[in-house]
Amino acid sequence: MHIRKLVVVGVGLIGGSCALALKRAGAVGEVVGVGRTRTNLDTALERRVVDRARTLDEDWAVEAKDADVVLLAAPVAQFPALLAALAGKLGPDTIVTDAGSTKQDVIAAAKDALGTHVAQFVPGHPIAGTEHTGAAAAYPSLFENRNVILTPLPETRTAGIERIAALWQTCGARVTTLAPARHDAIFAAVSHLPHVLAFALVAELASREDAAAYFDHAASGFRDFTRIAAGSPEMWRDIALANREALLAEIDLYADALAAARAMIAEGDAEAIDALFTEASTARRAWEARRTQPVVEDKG
Amino acid sequence: MHIRKLVVVGVGLIGGSCALALKRAGAVGEVVGVGRTRTNLDTALERRVVDRARTLDEDWAVEAKDADVVLLAAPVAQFPALLAALAGKLGPDTIVTDAGSTKQDVIAAAKDALGTHVAQFVPGHPIAGTEHTGAAAAYPSLFENRNVILTPLPETRTAGIERIAALWQTCGARVTTLAPARHDAIFAAVSHLPHVLAFALVAELASREDAAAYFDHAASGFRDFTRIAAGSPEMWRDIALANREALLAEIDLYADALAAARAMIAEGDAEAIDALFTEASTARRAWEARRTQPVVEDKG
Repeated sequence: MHIRKLVVVGVGLIGGSCALALKRAGAVGEVVGVGRTRTNLDTALERRVVDRARTLDEDWAVEAKDADVVLLAAPVAQFPALLAALAGKLGPDTIVTDAGSTKQDVIAAAKDALGTHVAQFVPGHPIAGTEHTGAAAAYPSLFENRNVILTPLPETRTAGIERIAALWQTCGARVTTLAPARHDAIFAAVSHLPHVLAFALVAELASREDAAAYFDHAASGFRDFTRIAAGSPEMWRDIALANREALLAEIDLYADALAAARAMIAEGDAEAIDALFTEASTARRAWEARRTQPVVEDKG
Repeated sequence: MHIRKLVVVGVGLIGGSCALALKRAGAVGEVVGVGRTRTNLDTALERRVVDRARTLDEDWAVEAKDADVVLLAAPVAQFPALLAALAGKLGPDTIVTDAGSTKQDVIAAAKDALGTHVAQFVPGHPIAGTEHTGAAAAYPSLFENRNVILTPLPETRTAGIERIAALWQTCGARVTTLAPARHDAIFAAVSHLPHVLAFALVAELASREDAAAYFDHAASGFRDFTRIAAGSPEMWRDIALANREALLAEIDLYADALAAARAMIAEGDAEAIDALFTEASTARRAWEARRTQPVVEDKG
């Protein structure tokens, strides 16, 4: 696996860490960073995350012509404009991929912008991140033993899928594929819904006149349950809107489940409550046991 | 502060750790442990958590006659029976206190069982715990810098309140007081509701035919959000029922908040979603910043 030229659009935690991982593996020639602000690009240059840099104000898309891979790692809301800028600028063998948290909306935007060249687009989602952002936060081991999901289309070039899979494996990740709709449904349930639930809980408490009395008595259970409510409002707003249909379906399923739990408590049905809590506790413990097993490394 | 004789009913993490903390401080003469199973009491004796032990099958309540303090640290569902056993057995200066997570139901049970002697009962709630249970898990520093809330009644003896406050301060805790109804409302919101929400989420996912596909893709946000769903089904069932009215009120407030968030997402109202998520994120970050400030120690 060798990438002669990589263009990273959005040199933040994800894009920057990918560049650093490939550099550490000796798997990349030149890395060109593209971003909104000069400040972050300067940090990326200083830290040798990228070798050259261009802002979005410049004609950055010309870099795609002779690039092997263009990685879109900017906020998803910027993707339609980024893809439109790339239209007509891809070299015959250039592969475009992305790191967005939702896939159906990104694929729709890629089809709109690239037309038949969407065959050169490999939709991807690396499941990694920390609460830190920007090129300063990037580090080469971010993707080690993490999952990266690719959601190719029927028309996606096989060679492109293989190249992007090899790219992420070189970063230390495990690569799997899912159908785009399936990806969005699963992440609506296990990621996007919990975020909405945590944001709603903390906002509701914070809106109370005597909010301080509540927060003062919150302990470790509250701390863990609400940690994700400290996340980026902008990023999660974009995800909620991008994956709206799947998220609404999950909210509805959850509201029904909560109403059922409420009814058990209102009726004082100890047996039903016990069965519900036991099902959850058993499943949660089994999940924790599985995920803490030693991970098989799969560095391609 | 010196307790000549302490009776601990329920020698688990909470009751056992309290005994160990008082022993370490040289603040207690004799500790008598009372429990359901001989096995756990034997562990408590071996670890010198208690000096003598009786099971609930024996006439344990006679120990209350010359005890300074009786601490009820068993599951709350056992309290009515424990308090009934103590009726008529308290010495004139014996103080009974408890470590239950809910207070109005415990107070009602204490009034039923003790009559006018409820003046000798000091309702309490130490905010501490780990996922481990039993006498084997007890350790003397569990309560250091933790909060203990007392919810005395108008008729509670002042000397009793002062004695129990001093007891917990000797264990390293900060002691505050709340009205019982206020206590139950606050903990319904910041503890009992999040537990019900997490149990409901995990049980709903686990009930799906293709549950494994969801769990396989769950990552660190899910891990933290659902950690409390691994808690004891029995304990949380009892808490949900004991604090039913306050919990139902919180579930209803939360369901309304979730419905409002759903409407914003359904309408694609980016501004409203942004405002909601920002309110939550700001409040959560402020809370984290406050709670990680150095804690003033208040060891009485």
